[in-house]
Amino acid sequence: MNTLSATEIAAQTTSGALRCEDVARACLDRIHMREPTVKAWSFLDAGMVLKEAKALDQQPVRGPLHGVPVGVKDVIETCDMPTQMGSPIYRGYQSLSDASCVALLRAAGALIFGKTVTCEFAGVTAGETTNPHDPARTPGGSSSGSGAAVADFMVPLAFGTQTGGSVQRPSSYCGIVGYKPTFGLINPQGVKPAAESLDTVGLMARTVEDVELSARVLTNSDPVTWLTKGAAVRIGLCRTYAWDSAEDATRHAVEDAARRLSAAGFAVRDVDLPEACNDLPVTREIINDFERARGMAYEWLAHCDAISEGLAKSIRNGLAMPRERYIDALQRVEGCRRLLGKTFADVDVLLTPTVQGEAPRGLSYTGDHRFQSIWTQLRTPAITLPTHAGPNGMPVGIQLVAMPYADDKLLAVARLIFDTLGRGPVIEV
Amino acid sequence: MNTLSATEIAAQTTSGALRCEDVARACLDRIHMREPTVKAWSFLDAGMVLKEAKALDQQPVRGPLHGVPVGVKDVIETCDMPTQMGSPIYRGYQSLSDASCVALLRAAGALIFGKTVTCEFAGVTAGETTNPHDPARTPGGSSSGSGAAVADFMVPLAFGTQTGGSVQRPSSYCGIVGYKPTFGLINPQGVKPAAESLDTVGLMARTVEDVELSARVLTNSDPVTWLTKGAAVRIGLCRTYAWDSAEDATRHAVEDAARRLSAAGFAVRDVDLPEACNDLPVTREIINDFERARGMAYEWLAHCDAISEGLAKSIRNGLAMPRERYIDALQRVEGCRRLLGKTFADVDVLLTPTVQGEAPRGLSYTGDHRFQSIWTQLRTPAITLPTHAGPNGMPVGIQLVAMPYADDKLLAVARLIFDTLGRGPVIEV
Repeated sequence: MNTLSATEIAAQTTSGALRCEDVARACLDRIHMREPTVKAWSFLDAGMVLKEAKALDQQPVRGPLHGVPVGVKDVIETCDMPTQMGSPIYRGYQSLSDASCVALLRAAGALIFGKTVTCEFAGVTAGETTNPHDPARTPGGSSSGSGAAVADFMVPLAFGTQTGGSVQRPSSYCGIVGYKPTFGLINPQGVKPAAESLDTVGLMARTVEDVELSARVLTNSDPVTWLTKGAAVRIGLCRTYAWDSAEDATRHAVEDAARRLSAAGFAVRDVDLPEACNDLPVTREIINDFERARGMAYEWLAHCDAISEGLAKSIRNGLAMPRERYIDALQRVEGCRRLLGKTFADVDVLLTPTVQGEAPRGLSYTGDHRFQSIWTQLRTPAITLPTHAGPNGMPVGIQLVAMPYADDKLLAVARLIFDTLGRGPVIEV
Repeated sequence: MNTLSATEIAAQTTSGALRCEDVARACLDRIHMREPTVKAWSFLDAGMVLKEAKALDQQPVRGPLHGVPVGVKDVIETCDMPTQMGSPIYRGYQSLSDASCVALLRAAGALIFGKTVTCEFAGVTAGETTNPHDPARTPGGSSSGSGAAVADFMVPLAFGTQTGGSVQRPSSYCGIVGYKPTFGLINPQGVKPAAESLDTVGLMARTVEDVELSARVLTNSDPVTWLTKGAAVRIGLCRTYAWDSAEDATRHAVEDAARRLSAAGFAVRDVDLPEACNDLPVTREIINDFERARGMAYEWLAHCDAISEGLAKSIRNGLAMPRERYIDALQRVEGCRRLLGKTFADVDVLLTPTVQGEAPRGLSYTGDHRFQSIWTQLRTPAITLPTHAGPNGMPVGIQLVAMPYADDKLLAVARLIFDTLGRGPVIEV
């Protein structure tokens, strides 16, 4: 039962074919078995989960996510579980309220299962989580626990957040679907900011339908009208300025996807990013550090000894940065955004790498964000699909991107493409 | 001593001419005398204030705001005082940390004095604060206590937040300087969101210099190079689409300012807002309600009985609103922003009304945001100057606006204009 999708669970708990309690028990069993290796959870209370599941079974169906277990990245506040931010500064910290995204899913009947491991304050300093495909490899970060828990069939759905590449990267490394909506579309209230002009709440799941179902609850959107297979979808193959950093596994994944989609009747053409986008690696660090330093002003001033050296470096850099440099970076990125219309003039979505290749070996480095942070800065919706495998049998995703606010189109095309290309490596249950 | 500006206090505590404790005592005396009438504070502990002031006197000077008393609107978190949001839901709520803006001022030596009364969750439902010029009139909202405390010489500086007109309006009604920077320039971490794509942290003071001094600390900007009197500043008189709603007091204030500035050698010309801006009153309510409903999802779902009817109406409206309508509003406002370059093509700043006229009688209605929310949506910096009086001797401000990120230019021009026009009604001390 723990391998069911959120959509399947909700359909069956709503019809009465399944009890929420039984679903919860199946997920708890899986966690019990695998958690010693995967270490995806920073807080999980089985008793609380079962009590809530039983309560859901007693109640009338509240909404479209009845009984769906959801993992919550541990920088997102929950009124009944601690939010520890991957930092000793917040050890045992209990917020008063649920973050917006948590409250809205709860109201729709979701079963908030527990908190998933995050890198320290959603930054670069890794937690203990391992990649469920190979415990010697990183699950990616900073939404490490969410990526691993969903991939490992512990829960069908989890929240992540992305400021550089923190949803897309672990989704590719762990072999799941990672959706970063258009900036702001999922309300960020109650999420600890990393860099607030970039921070985006995202969804991690095993199917595009599950992403769509939960996005619908969160943003009050209409159900996505899925495209008919074979419709003339126009795809722009966008290698981006970072292409030279891609390993063979990613080059193969993206080009193989393009080839097979073209063979399946999609219209595929090459698309270049505007030249102005070449600055994005530089602007991302400027904006991140300037905002990070201010967003963490209290922690830095009151608890700097408890902050990792990696994060401290960003904060020091941001505090010393002249405001003019930050404003210049914001304006350059805004300039890039204004050019997007031209990039998308003749295509519905872009097909582009998610990451360089397979998840790197080792747990301390969670990977490179350059393929992901392009789209975080441009504020476009983006989705990673787990379609390919690398030389070691590890998952390698492809990324699809649409114009800002064309999220529904992106999801519709993504399902079609996922159906066409099929799924890459899956954890054995 | 409580009538000194922040700049004066900092200079004298730094030179040793004044003790922080004596400044604090003078402010506390003023509060003791006037608070029963003005009701500006939701939390103030005189013992804590004096202890902190004495500690500052014992320490080396930490930064450019040494010993400056600061009021903090009660939707902004403080690690040592409750943050009660003007709502029974947050009665006694103690956050773990300081908001970014509080931590940064504290680090610069500021003396965080207490929490100022806010409308419920920075919305429309008023607190108890009265206008220090006339206790039968509203101080404006939602930064009611901050406006009243600064105007009444209780503290020289206070934080406000603006989602519609919550900094500018109380500043005009109370007769002080109110500065809303370019969106995002003061980091919003630790501030309870009202509608996060509009929420802006602002500063309320009695002089432009004080605003500049504190903005410099918060954003790491260079000191503003004040313009020489008589420099050829180009002013666009912008009556806006809301001009018909202005009372004689405001029409007189704005046109008198234009006339006298022109006579003093400023280049004044009429400037119209782009026609697309006529939609801004509609888009503001759509964006506000959609985001408000999600930002308050927890409070609504867990404590809806403790939410005022005015706020409940916004939340209900926002929850029922289709996402398409919200996206359309965001895109329309973004379209207006892209036209701003043309509006400012031949002028340095716009001169425009802040409010309709004097503070309305009564305490339950905090006034109309239509002249302020134009600029909140356009994300421009804006500053209100307390230059005029209405028919009842109440203050009436004028508003100056510059292009996004031209905050330094705005402050320089604002000082010049304030020096030229002089100050309107002031509370008797």
